[in-house]
Amino acid sequence: METMNKIDLNNYKEIIENYLEQYSLKNFPSNLTDSAHHIMTLDGKRLRPIMVLMSYMSYDEKYEKALNAAIAIEVFHNFTLVHDDIMDEAKVRRGQVTVHEKFGVNKAIVTGDAMLPHSYNLLTLGNEDKAADLLAVFSKMAIEVMEGQQYDMNFETMDEVTPEEYMEMIRLKTSVLFGASMEIGGVIGGASEDDRQKLYDFGLYTGLAFQIMDDYLDAFGDPKTFGKKVGGDILLNKKTFLLTNAIKMATPEQKQQIETLFNETNEASKIEQFKALFTEMNLPQLCLNKMEELHDKALGRLRSTTISEENKERLEYLGDVMLRRVK
Amino acid sequence: METMNKIDLNNYKEIIENYLEQYSLKNFPSNLTDSAHHIMTLDGKRLRPIMVLMSYMSYDEKYEKALNAAIAIEVFHNFTLVHDDIMDEAKVRRGQVTVHEKFGVNKAIVTGDAMLPHSYNLLTLGNEDKAADLLAVFSKMAIEVMEGQQYDMNFETMDEVTPEEYMEMIRLKTSVLFGASMEIGGVIGGASEDDRQKLYDFGLYTGLAFQIMDDYLDAFGDPKTFGKKVGGDILLNKKTFLLTNAIKMATPEQKQQIETLFNETNEASKIEQFKALFTEMNLPQLCLNKMEELHDKALGRLRSTTISEENKERLEYLGDVMLRRVK
Repeated sequence: METMNKIDLNNYKEIIENYLEQYSLKNFPSNLTDSAHHIMTLDGKRLRPIMVLMSYMSYDEKYEKALNAAIAIEVFHNFTLVHDDIMDEAKVRRGQVTVHEKFGVNKAIVTGDAMLPHSYNLLTLGNEDKAADLLAVFSKMAIEVMEGQQYDMNFETMDEVTPEEYMEMIRLKTSVLFGASMEIGGVIGGASEDDRQKLYDFGLYTGLAFQIMDDYLDAFGDPKTFGKKVGGDILLNKKTFLLTNAIKMATPEQKQQIETLFNETNEASKIEQFKALFTEMNLPQLCLNKMEELHDKALGRLRSTTISEENKERLEYLGDVMLRRVK
Repeated sequence: METMNKIDLNNYKEIIENYLEQYSLKNFPSNLTDSAHHIMTLDGKRLRPIMVLMSYMSYDEKYEKALNAAIAIEVFHNFTLVHDDIMDEAKVRRGQVTVHEKFGVNKAIVTGDAMLPHSYNLLTLGNEDKAADLLAVFSKMAIEVMEGQQYDMNFETMDEVTPEEYMEMIRLKTSVLFGASMEIGGVIGGASEDDRQKLYDFGLYTGLAFQIMDDYLDAFGDPKTFGKKVGGDILLNKKTFLLTNAIKMATPEQKQQIETLFNETNEASKIEQFKALFTEMNLPQLCLNKMEELHDKALGRLRSTTISEENKERLEYLGDVMLRRVK
């Protein structure tokens, strides 16, 4: 593979897609392959497995050694999507019908339940000598993701969620998976304990910034490029980085306004008014500042690893793509 | 621990219960502990973790080395119960309200999803040097259990299920977990490849016989000792060992009678008539013969291992307790 530059991110995606297509459901139960295949082939950015590969390649360019672990991470991620969609009663994901809509809730539960041990199988395949370390990183992450999912569900019935609670929730639900992706690449590549922790932190901070960007774009994104329905979180009164900070900083009048807006039934008006309020409170800037802060932390950790400058640049570029800092 | 005899099976259960109480939910997410604790503390026989311990102790009496893996198996088993109860819409398990009834379906899904990686964590804890082998046995089993669960669900909408298909379903859904319990004890105890396979087979055949006994007792068991509602499977038209064999062996008249009975609304009469038909077709004896055949196979495999006579007797006794051959 050539040295990283702005063009060849698609090379990584292609490697991942080809390998996923061939091996991600190898030895998977035949009576669950249709449903698992449905979620695994939805068009996605494959950021997490690309992270595993790039992290590994910071120690050894022969990326084949990290491919099984990379797709393990993607299978795990897709398992969480299948179960999340059941819980959210989502009908559509990435423009396609969700697994439980197409195959029924029970089959969707069992499909996810089989994808999880399948991802464990893939994780250590070809790297059995590192099984204990890989297992430790992966299981800790998996349990934290579930803990985050439960926090997120608890938020729905909580009157007030602080920005700190929100950050802890997205750390668990979203960001630890990016951290683990980086660390798993490092483990297979033979990174030191110290590098492993720094790679994990790079993934974690980038993941946090990624989620805050998603919250920002939900309100202020361009409908043409966002990929999801703009204003979706607002319509659900979802406790996001924007809303939790708005509630924290609100004057009594603004608090009243927010309460009233929660019950606004005109969708366009609700989105418009919330956006106006967020802007009035300078929250778009707060998002951008927070993302900048997290991006800086991520880079600080990356730069203090022992990997080469070239490899640092490659990972930095991946972070920039994730956070839409480059086109 | 003393030499095995008819009295001290409770010693094993007590060891398991104490260890479960202390360690089974250690480092489990605090926001999911209540729901996981609910299922883990339902009164159960703890047969699977006892199997892990006894299998291990066939190689080394210091059972502490196998305790984490034993409770990993029990946590995994309980995860499947939580999700199975959601899919079956079961309201009661072992006389207690089910997890999803008490905590809601979504929390029950996430609880199971966290229990599964938690069981992986426990599996290798203290036996990291054997992580690759433990993982391989455990993941293969876990995926097969899900495959079996999906077969079982497919059966609900299939017109005809053969006894062979039924046996394959219970091999996957129920029996491989007993096989893996035995093998995992062997792996930790340092058993040879050959012994491992034989221990697995002992668990597998015993598990198959155990499930056929359950099918038999559902129709012909004593309501005082069965533990579940007698006739429960009959009322659900469930494809069991009895029903699949009845349909296979039925004359055209008997087939017609079965079709009519499927729609019988008087519950007591439906159970009575099905039992009469099964008896007329000599199916109780078929069950007992099949159990005997499987029990013989299990013992044949056990006896050909390299473990001591005393340890063979101990495991044989456990099988006898499972299959109610002793009081």
